[in-house]
Amino acid sequence: MLDLEPLKKEAALRAAALIESGMRVGLGTGSTAKYAIEEIGRRVRSGELSGIVGVATSEASDALAREVGLTVEPLDPRPLDIAIDGADEIAPNLDLIKGLGGALLREKLTEVQARRLIIIADHSKIVGQIGEKAPLPIEIARFGFLSTIERLRQIVPGGRLRQPGAQPYVTDNGNYIYDAQLRPGSDIAALERELKGTLGVVETGLFLGMAERAFVASPDGVQELTR
Amino acid sequence: MLDLEPLKKEAALRAAALIESGMRVGLGTGSTAKYAIEEIGRRVRSGELSGIVGVATSEASDALAREVGLTVEPLDPRPLDIAIDGADEIAPNLDLIKGLGGALLREKLTEVQARRLIIIADHSKIVGQIGEKAPLPIEIARFGFLSTIERLRQIVPGGRLRQPGAQPYVTDNGNYIYDAQLRPGSDIAALERELKGTLGVVETGLFLGMAERAFVASPDGVQELTR
Repeated sequence: MLDLEPLKKEAALRAAALIESGMRVGLGTGSTAKYAIEEIGRRVRSGELSGIVGVATSEASDALAREVGLTVEPLDPRPLDIAIDGADEIAPNLDLIKGLGGALLREKLTEVQARRLIIIADHSKIVGQIGEKAPLPIEIARFGFLSTIERLRQIVPGGRLRQPGAQPYVTDNGNYIYDAQLRPGSDIAALERELKGTLGVVETGLFLGMAERAFVASPDGVQELTR
Repeated sequence: MLDLEPLKKEAALRAAALIESGMRVGLGTGSTAKYAIEEIGRRVRSGELSGIVGVATSEASDALAREVGLTVEPLDPRPLDIAIDGADEIAPNLDLIKGLGGALLREKLTEVQARRLIIIADHSKIVGQIGEKAPLPIEIARFGFLSTIERLRQIVPGGRLRQPGAQPYVTDNGNYIYDAQLRPGSDIAALERELKGTLGVVETGLFLGMAERAFVASPDGVQELTR
């Protein structure tokens, strides 16, 4: 089986090369974003970059960023120059599914403020249409979650509450995640409105029209996709 | 100044009289709902009612219900026979603003499952149109709340983060509340969709098409309004 880690890292290095001194940078979450944070940290420590401020999309990325020597500030309403993050699915128009790492709400809140959202991934994340491979993570309130799941089942064909052990997974915001199976070929923009409008839903992992470009690494090299 | 407490209680007694043995009852939150919970408890303790199960819309109402002798269960997907709650504004068609008590998300999640939602209030809560007197409470994620407020200000003319002391008010779900000023005469259903669709918004205090009837007490007696 192909080891994807070197590919993830290669994509991350390409994105991290876009960072310039003085930028406010949104820092993604997950196993691919980790490589980007480490590389930005390396460039800062080497003196190649200065005046970088990171804004983290999870408590885990916040901790990692500080560990590699980055200055981290909380999100405020000022725009970010750039944000770099992974994705679970990337459609040809750069619509995304995100949230497998559990940080979809903070990622969306942060990355919507970025002038440029750069996605990094290995080639296994490329799909013909959204929902082909990955479930769609939907962040839902804990209170009454069973009823919210019933409402979601009226909209999407199936899914399950994310529960890695004895207890459901809890996000940094204290909510649960329902991993929904989508019907391939759905009108994704309409689905997004319907899901977000559902009582009990806090946010969905659909990132539509947000990404500017994606660096996608395969054994043949890194492909650069734009919208 | 007119003491509204006896009026609130009078309305509450009228609603509590609708409860029958064996019912699953949604228990509202706030100073008017309190009287209804106390009255249901009294009727249970006196032996007039049996087999009542309460489902509370806040930690405060949960505690009060147990204190007055009610059996309380968590919300599950089964319907409730009835729910009784107060409101901050009541329009002629029984559209409501709720959430001044801070429990709007749990109230909405609970009351949407009630076959009958009965509203109790004093006459000061009656308005010609929604947004006339009360601000609209909107529950928002804490992370990035300043940016979410900026987005809300593009939709509603004004408002403020609820902050009774040094720190913002935190809901039972760990979120903040933004009290928005509405533009009188707005298309309320469209506004509800737009607000709920806004990134960072968890839920709004607009309860549209949910209430079946309202008992509204004034010095002249209790008026019963239906949709």
